[in-house]
Amino acid sequence: MPELSHRGNAMPASPIRKLAPLAAKAVERDLHVYRLNIGQPDLPTPPQALEALHAIDMEVLEYSASEGIPQLRAKMAEYYHRHNINVTPEDIIITTGGSEAVMFAFMTTLDPGDEVIIPEPAYANYKAFALQGGAKIVSVPSSIDNGFRLPHIEEFERLITPRTKGICICSPNNPTGYIYTAEEMLKLRDLVKRYNLFLYSDEVYREFCYSDRRPVSALSLEGIEDNVIVIDSVSKRYNECGIRIGTLVTRNRALYANVMKFAQARLSPPLIGQLVALASIDVPQTYLDNAIEEYRRRRDFLVNGLNEIPGVFSPMPEGAFYTMARLPVESAEDFCRWCLTEFSYNGATVFMAPGEGFYTTPGLGRNEVRIAYVHRIEALAGALECLRAALEAYKNR
Amino acid sequence: MPELSHRGNAMPASPIRKLAPLAAKAVERDLHVYRLNIGQPDLPTPPQALEALHAIDMEVLEYSASEGIPQLRAKMAEYYHRHNINVTPEDIIITTGGSEAVMFAFMTTLDPGDEVIIPEPAYANYKAFALQGGAKIVSVPSSIDNGFRLPHIEEFERLITPRTKGICICSPNNPTGYIYTAEEMLKLRDLVKRYNLFLYSDEVYREFCYSDRRPVSALSLEGIEDNVIVIDSVSKRYNECGIRIGTLVTRNRALYANVMKFAQARLSPPLIGQLVALASIDVPQTYLDNAIEEYRRRRDFLVNGLNEIPGVFSPMPEGAFYTMARLPVESAEDFCRWCLTEFSYNGATVFMAPGEGFYTTPGLGRNEVRIAYVHRIEALAGALECLRAALEAYKNR
Repeated sequence: MPELSHRGNAMPASPIRKLAPLAAKAVERDLHVYRLNIGQPDLPTPPQALEALHAIDMEVLEYSASEGIPQLRAKMAEYYHRHNINVTPEDIIITTGGSEAVMFAFMTTLDPGDEVIIPEPAYANYKAFALQGGAKIVSVPSSIDNGFRLPHIEEFERLITPRTKGICICSPNNPTGYIYTAEEMLKLRDLVKRYNLFLYSDEVYREFCYSDRRPVSALSLEGIEDNVIVIDSVSKRYNECGIRIGTLVTRNRALYANVMKFAQARLSPPLIGQLVALASIDVPQTYLDNAIEEYRRRRDFLVNGLNEIPGVFSPMPEGAFYTMARLPVESAEDFCRWCLTEFSYNGATVFMAPGEGFYTTPGLGRNEVRIAYVHRIEALAGALECLRAALEAYKNR
Repeated sequence: MPELSHRGNAMPASPIRKLAPLAAKAVERDLHVYRLNIGQPDLPTPPQALEALHAIDMEVLEYSASEGIPQLRAKMAEYYHRHNINVTPEDIIITTGGSEAVMFAFMTTLDPGDEVIIPEPAYANYKAFALQGGAKIVSVPSSIDNGFRLPHIEEFERLITPRTKGICICSPNNPTGYIYTAEEMLKLRDLVKRYNLFLYSDEVYREFCYSDRRPVSALSLEGIEDNVIVIDSVSKRYNECGIRIGTLVTRNRALYANVMKFAQARLSPPLIGQLVALASIDVPQTYLDNAIEEYRRRRDFLVNGLNEIPGVFSPMPEGAFYTMARLPVESAEDFCRWCLTEFSYNGATVFMAPGEGFYTTPGLGRNEVRIAYVHRIEALAGALECLRAALEAYKNR
């Protein structure tokens, strides 16, 4: 058979999804699986969104414009205005999930061999999309011991080479929950300006903040208007991950024009998802307030519970709905596999994402896992009990 | 501002969509625009599909499995069995439109500098997806004068180099309507086998045949099971381009595993589209028969009408729903732009896709356009009248 591409062989398996076949096998063994691996919230999609779905009255489900339907681009601009972010519909391209926005951003700014600096641990798929374009991720490690605070700006600066094209951040952060301070954002701005870099800013968790700190949008940083590319998505905000609707936002006209060429090559984002998203953005603020309050409770319950298990440590995340936890094991991946294949407790087991896949520096995160608190407190209680028993049994295996 | 990627700058604008802003301006001038540029059928989506959409009863619109929901993979396997193509659900990955299937196929088999041989004119976006991965399209020209017959197999062989990784075909063809003969397919098989190449086979127009010739699926060619990657889509078959559901089919397990890594990186294909597609595949055969009969009438009407316009020539396409037509102009692109910006006839104008963008060999197709016959005969009649008047006025401008 012909040789596969080196690119495809080198592509990392998703740490979030690669153990999914083992979880499916656990289900076949009649086990209940606590799925803490993926940011798939259990909260209901807004009823307004489902009503919009049922009200779709079209004879032909046509392609939409490549940049998205005008109504949704206008609605997203309104949404940003509500957050004091001043953009126009002409700055917005609707994408097939935030994933495609990352891909478009990297494809239009990076050539093979180019470098992007990313604080690690990071959302694992940045690596996958960089690799698709032949670009290289250069990581600035942050540490679980100080709550994954943004590394000193000097550490970023030290990594800049002639091939550095940008810095990629995510705040509130997936997987750490860290929210960058206003001061840190200003320092990043200065760096980006001084070295003429792109700033890729993943802001999909904008609303999910549990402290007084509010994330600063990269779009509100002055003086780097042409450098900023924001990646966004309605998936988490309105509990509609399945519709695959995100946005890429940039004020850089030349960049926008090139993104459009990629957008046109894939014809259009999903039409039905766009109509669902359109109806979601106007849901009353109470919808989001309730979700945030619920996540705050879950976070407190989960993280306190984790820290009560001997040998386990998790900092208290400020935002998003994940936490990175350190486990008393040598290889968290081996432990996660073992939980799905060998272990059960009261007819259940836990499915967590091995931490190593969120790092690029070899060896980092080996004893960490990412846990998403996207389940009811009763389920989290069951999962914690299960995890405690699993760690005990794993030690004595 | 930082430099954009060379890749993004080199990315060709879509010949199908790049004049869309001019068409929008024509609409602002209160003109009716005959949109012959894009394969967006006017036929109704199956009522069963719309019913399925309205019957969706889920509390949370969740991510689906990265490879697609099991029901749709099973249903697609059934569909292939109906066409005597023997594949299992395990050979099928659901993609976000056929576009993503092309991207996954190229990303997992091609590295920068690798070459794919494609008969030209070809679907323009193959070029775009090859370029995203840094691969190179090598074209075998086919000619309008003999109805775009597949070039002699020796012409393919002549182009094979150590960097050649595959051959990409589309039958029934977009944009030419040509259907490869069984003999041609066997010759391609032998070539693929002899040189150990991949065979990318875009079969999205499988049903749309207006002669006795039926397309041969690459999946039914014996002896190259590990070489074949089929690209497919429900968009055209069921008039639901907007749901963005396609498939990638391969029996090559190692390739499948690598495609899965790309599929997991983008999380999942659109959930709602999958449910709509699922309901579409079981529509009675009369749905497709009626569509095919309608396209046959339209094809006859359009192509005969084109050939009656002085200086215009179009071969009679056997399948799909496009034709390439030669116009009595030096630059079809200039003419297409002029139609949208300067011309009107009885309050209308025509929007065609300039032919050059479907070729890679410089200079080829300059006086050709692609026309999609996806409109009622009355509309095609209006478009033909408009085109005749436009050519006359353009000559005397």
